[in-house]
Amino acid sequence: MEIEIIAIGNEVLSGSVVNTNASFISQSLSSEGFVINRHTVVPDDETVLKESLKEALTRSQIVITTGGLGPTCDDISRHVAAELFNSPLHYDEELAEDLKKRYGAYLTTITNQATVPSKARLLKNPAGTAPGFVFQGEHATLIMLPGVPPEMRLMLREQVIPFLRTHYASLFRWYSRKLNMFGVPESSVDPILRQIQFEYPNIRCGIYPGQGVLGVTLSVMAKDEDSALQQLEKPILMISNHFPDKLFDSPTGKLAPLVHQLFIDNGMTLSAAESCTGGCFSAHLTNLPGASQYFLGSVVAYSNELKTEFLGVSKALIAEKGAVSKEVVQEMCLGIQKRTGSDYSVAISGIAGPTGGSSEKPVGTLWCAVGKKGHEPKVWLFQGRGSREMVIERGVNALLFELYCQLRA
Amino acid sequence: MEIEIIAIGNEVLSGSVVNTNASFISQSLSSEGFVINRHTVVPDDETVLKESLKEALTRSQIVITTGGLGPTCDDISRHVAAELFNSPLHYDEELAEDLKKRYGAYLTTITNQATVPSKARLLKNPAGTAPGFVFQGEHATLIMLPGVPPEMRLMLREQVIPFLRTHYASLFRWYSRKLNMFGVPESSVDPILRQIQFEYPNIRCGIYPGQGVLGVTLSVMAKDEDSALQQLEKPILMISNHFPDKLFDSPTGKLAPLVHQLFIDNGMTLSAAESCTGGCFSAHLTNLPGASQYFLGSVVAYSNELKTEFLGVSKALIAEKGAVSKEVVQEMCLGIQKRTGSDYSVAISGIAGPTGGSSEKPVGTLWCAVGKKGHEPKVWLFQGRGSREMVIERGVNALLFELYCQLRA
Repeated sequence: MEIEIIAIGNEVLSGSVVNTNASFISQSLSSEGFVINRHTVVPDDETVLKESLKEALTRSQIVITTGGLGPTCDDISRHVAAELFNSPLHYDEELAEDLKKRYGAYLTTITNQATVPSKARLLKNPAGTAPGFVFQGEHATLIMLPGVPPEMRLMLREQVIPFLRTHYASLFRWYSRKLNMFGVPESSVDPILRQIQFEYPNIRCGIYPGQGVLGVTLSVMAKDEDSALQQLEKPILMISNHFPDKLFDSPTGKLAPLVHQLFIDNGMTLSAAESCTGGCFSAHLTNLPGASQYFLGSVVAYSNELKTEFLGVSKALIAEKGAVSKEVVQEMCLGIQKRTGSDYSVAISGIAGPTGGSSEKPVGTLWCAVGKKGHEPKVWLFQGRGSREMVIERGVNALLFELYCQLRA
Repeated sequence: MEIEIIAIGNEVLSGSVVNTNASFISQSLSSEGFVINRHTVVPDDETVLKESLKEALTRSQIVITTGGLGPTCDDISRHVAAELFNSPLHYDEELAEDLKKRYGAYLTTITNQATVPSKARLLKNPAGTAPGFVFQGEHATLIMLPGVPPEMRLMLREQVIPFLRTHYASLFRWYSRKLNMFGVPESSVDPILRQIQFEYPNIRCGIYPGQGVLGVTLSVMAKDEDSALQQLEKPILMISNHFPDKLFDSPTGKLAPLVHQLFIDNGMTLSAAESCTGGCFSAHLTNLPGASQYFLGSVVAYSNELKTEFLGVSKALIAEKGAVSKEVVQEMCLGIQKRTGSDYSVAISGIAGPTGGSSEKPVGTLWCAVGKKGHEPKVWLFQGRGSREMVIERGVNALLFELYCQLRA
C-alpha cells in the first residue's frame, strides 16, 4: 500500500517557497503509522500535472495533492482531475451559499470556486474559499487540498486523517518509536541496526542525522497494532543496551527545548560564558519562549581581554595555559556564576576553525565546563568536527547534553 | 532544457526533515537564471531509486540528487548510480589519503567513503566525508551531492554552479543581476516589477523572500550574453531609483558577511550588548571565519540585573523607563563600548514574544542602537513582526543594516 504527495506550484520549484506542506502531511501521517513513499513537486502546467497524476495513481493507492485549487489563471488542479476522473464540473448551489454567507456576495470568485467536479466528494475549507476533493478511482484515491498551509493543515487534521483512519487503517499502518542519541555517529549505530534487521526481519529501521546535534535519530517500526509494542521491545533494548548513556527523548530531536523545560520545571537559573561558540549557545535557548524565566544572561568573551574584564580570568593563567585550556574554561565557568549568581553556569573555549589550529590543539578542540553552585565544575575536552558552523553547533550541543544529564538526574 | 532535483531519504518522507535542500538548490539556480522543472523525494530503496533516476535522466538534461551518500547500510545512491552508468566502484587512494589527513586514520568508514564510481568526476566535500559525483551520460548529466545541508550548500556554491555556468551557460542561461533590499516588503516591489515586465517584455524578474532579512532579493534576468548588461541597465535603475537607501549588494543575500568584511577592511573593532536577541547578533558574526579580527565580545544582558552589573545601566533608569526603552538601549550601547574599548558598539532591547507585549509596547517592539567611539549613538525604534524567531532575526538584521550603512559611508 503506497501513499504519495504531489505539490503543485512554480513558487516551490523556483525556491521562493519551501515545501513545508509535504513535510507536514508526512509527519502527520507517519505519526499515525502510515508510510509515505514519494513526494513530487510539479509546475503549474496542465500537461505535466496530468501525466504526473496518471503515473502516481497507477503507482500508489493514495495520492494527496496540495495547491492549484485557487481562482486564478494558473490554478489548474481541479480541471485536470475532473478530466482524469471523467467527472464534469458543475455549479454547487450549497457551496456557493456557504461562501456567500462567509465572504459576502460581492466576492468575485464565488462562481469559480463553487464550480466543482460532480463525482468528487467535497472537503470543506473552513479557513478559505477553495474546497478540497476526494476522487475515488478504481485502484486509487486522489485527495486534493489547497496549498495555503493553514487551510491545508486544518483540512488534513479534521477531515483527511479521519477519512484515512476509517478506510485504510487495517491495511497498512506501521507503529514507530523514535530514539535520539547524542555523540554517536551513524557508523556506530549501523552495525546494531543491521543486526536488528537480520534478527527481526519484520522490523523496519531508519537512521537520520541528528538535528544539528552530533548524533542520530533512530526510528524503529513494526506492523500490526496489537503486537507492535511487544515486537519493538527487544530491538529497542538492543539499542539502549549498546548506548546506555547516550539516549534522550525529544519529539523534535533537539536538545535545547529539553534543557529549557528542565530549567523551568526545576526552578533553576543559568548563565553562560562563551568564547568560540560566540553567542550561539545563548541564542539556542533564548530563541524559545519563556527563556527569561531561567536564563540570566551570558558573556561572549571573544577576546582574551574580555575574559579578564568580565569573567575575572587571570591574565597570567591565559598566558601560561592558553585561552583554549582546561584551567581557563574552569575559571570562565566559575567567573560567570559568581558575577550572575546563577544556579548553573556553562563555559566553552575552543578552536572553531577553519584556521587557528595546531598539532597540539587542532581545529575542533573544545574545552567545555558545566558548573553547579557550590560544586566543582565538570570540565572536559570535546573534539568537534566539520566546518566552523558544525564545530560551533556541536560545542553548543555538548554543553546542552551535559546540562540535560545533570538536570535529569 | 530541463533540470530536476531528487532528494533521497526516508527522513524526508517521514516528515522528520523538511526538504530545504531542494528549495536551496532551486533558489540558487533560479537566481542564476536556470529553471527547475521538478522536485522528487524517494525512499532509501535501491529499486525505487534506480527507476526514478532512469525516468529523470530520460525526462531531463540535468538531474541533481541529494542524500544517500553516507557510509551506512541505508546509503545506496553511489551503488545505484554506478550500476546505471556502468561505472564499477574502485578504491581511490588520493581520496582516502585526504580523508585520513583530515579525520585521522582511525575513522572506520574511510575505505567505504573512498570507494567511488570509476567513471564519475568527483566533487570534493571540504566539510564532510562523503564526496559528490558527476556522471556524464549520453543525454543527461547526473550530479550527486550529500544530504547534510552545510556540506551540500558549500559544494553547490563552489563546484556545481561554476560547473553549470561553464558547461550549460550558452544553452539556457539567463544572465541575472541580484538586488537585495532591506526593510522592503514584497508588496511594495511588486508594482515596479510589473511595470518593468510591461516596458521590457524580454526581461524576467523574480522576487524571493530575504534570507532571514526583513526584505527581499530581486533577480532581474536577460537572455543573450552580449547585450545582457545593456538590457538590464534601465530596469535596475528603475528599481534603485525607487529604493535608493534600501539596497545592498550581497551574493548570499545576507548582511552579516558584508558587515564582517567591512570591519576587517576598515580595521575597526566591535562589541555588542544584547537583550532580546539573546546572543543571536553575536552568533551571526562569530559564525564567520576571521570574526576574532574585529569582534571583541558581547554581553547578553537578559535579566535587568545584568544590564546594571555588566553594562552599568542605572537601576533607577530601568525602573523609570523600562528595559525596553530608548534611554536604556543608549546606556547599554555606551556601557559595552566603555567596558570593551571597541570602535563601534551595538545594543538592542525589545519584546520578542509571543507573550510580554502591551498596547504601548507590543510584541515586536525593538529599540536599537549603533554607536561609534566619540560620537552620540544612533538610537531608533524598529517594529519587528512575525514569530519570536523572526522578531529576533529581524532585530539582528536591523543592527547589521545600520552598521553596513555607517561603515560603507
